[in-house]
Amino acid sequence: MAGPKQERAVQTREAILRAAAETFDELGYAGASVNLILKRAGLTTGALYFHFDSKEGLARAVMNAQPDTIVPGLRSEGLQRLVDITLSWSHLLQVDPLLRAGVRLTGEQASFGTSDATPYQAWAGIMADCLRAAQDKGELQAGVSPEELGEFVTEACTGMQMFSAVASGRKDLTDRTIRMWRLLLPGVAVPAIVSRTEVSHERLRSLVG
Amino acid sequence: MAGPKQERAVQTREAILRAAAETFDELGYAGASVNLILKRAGLTTGALYFHFDSKEGLARAVMNAQPDTIVPGLRSEGLQRLVDITLSWSHLLQVDPLLRAGVRLTGEQASFGTSDATPYQAWAGIMADCLRAAQDKGELQAGVSPEELGEFVTEACTGMQMFSAVASGRKDLTDRTIRMWRLLLPGVAVPAIVSRTEVSHERLRSLVG
Repeated sequence: MAGPKQERAVQTREAILRAAAETFDELGYAGASVNLILKRAGLTTGALYFHFDSKEGLARAVMNAQPDTIVPGLRSEGLQRLVDITLSWSHLLQVDPLLRAGVRLTGEQASFGTSDATPYQAWAGIMADCLRAAQDKGELQAGVSPEELGEFVTEACTGMQMFSAVASGRKDLTDRTIRMWRLLLPGVAVPAIVSRTEVSHERLRSLVG
Repeated sequence: MAGPKQERAVQTREAILRAAAETFDELGYAGASVNLILKRAGLTTGALYFHFDSKEGLARAVMNAQPDTIVPGLRSEGLQRLVDITLSWSHLLQVDPLLRAGVRLTGEQASFGTSDATPYQAWAGIMADCLRAAQDKGELQAGVSPEELGEFVTEACTGMQMFSAVASGRKDLTDRTIRMWRLLLPGVAVPAIVSRTEVSHERLRSLVG
């Protein structure tokens, strides 16, 4: 059991992560400074370096926190779960600074000398988990590899959000996500699942309440 | 007909564009300077500002030159032409600084205060042209929109190259491109075309000689 001291440490770490996310989201890696982040969090340098070893370490932590914002809340399984993850993501990317900063930093890695496939691999792994469950339930067509499809959906989502960011400030990201599944499902899922899987704005509303 | 003066102007413009591409490719937008670009091109400030109004104007020209590097050389039609475009792109992105700089700058736009969907839309438009031809030849499944599929393939390619850049320095980009078509074709093309379309390293070798 965590005592009050451990609880406070967890809260401090989360406060730093959130302040860092908001700052990176607004200013990018180059524009954000440790001082700006500390000022926003209302904390001292010591508190920061207890949890993170550098600005780059902080950026990595923000990049790698992406799936935590989405996955725990979902109760569906198999292909519907994967669809739900992408629908929730398309919505949260518009409202959650932690997710948005993670995506921005992942794309900006070259500018701070990092080359880290972990954020992509984490998403691809979570998607492959859903797809292995889908395969066990007989939802996938023969020959479709959960690992390959998980990587491909991760790639498609990455590109969708970049196109959507400059085309509409991400306002059309849910439309693009729905379109992806309309084009992709018939080639990867068995016919009964293609017609039964819910991919719509209504489905998203049922997920985010 | 272009006289020697016009020809020289075209050559100068191309020399600037290539030097800019090489510099942006290596250093990104923030790291590149007009002076570095001019030094590499062996030209004066006057020559630059005759053709481009600013560093940002130069970056836009590099971003928007991407399709010119690929599309003119291809002779196939319909879906095979679209597949060929993506295969060629997956190879040229590893060797052509103009294409690579265009992709890097398109992704880095936020860092220089630009938000320009034109590079994405240009690719999506070229892909939609191939797909309209495919539709006319009866290659697409009913209900598949050339415009929607063109945008989606543009998005998927964007994300593929980002994942591939950090996972393998883009060495596995052709593999990822082949995988995309294996997953996508059965849902969008009629069965005869799925089996007839060539999507392989051999096909790429036949295109780049």
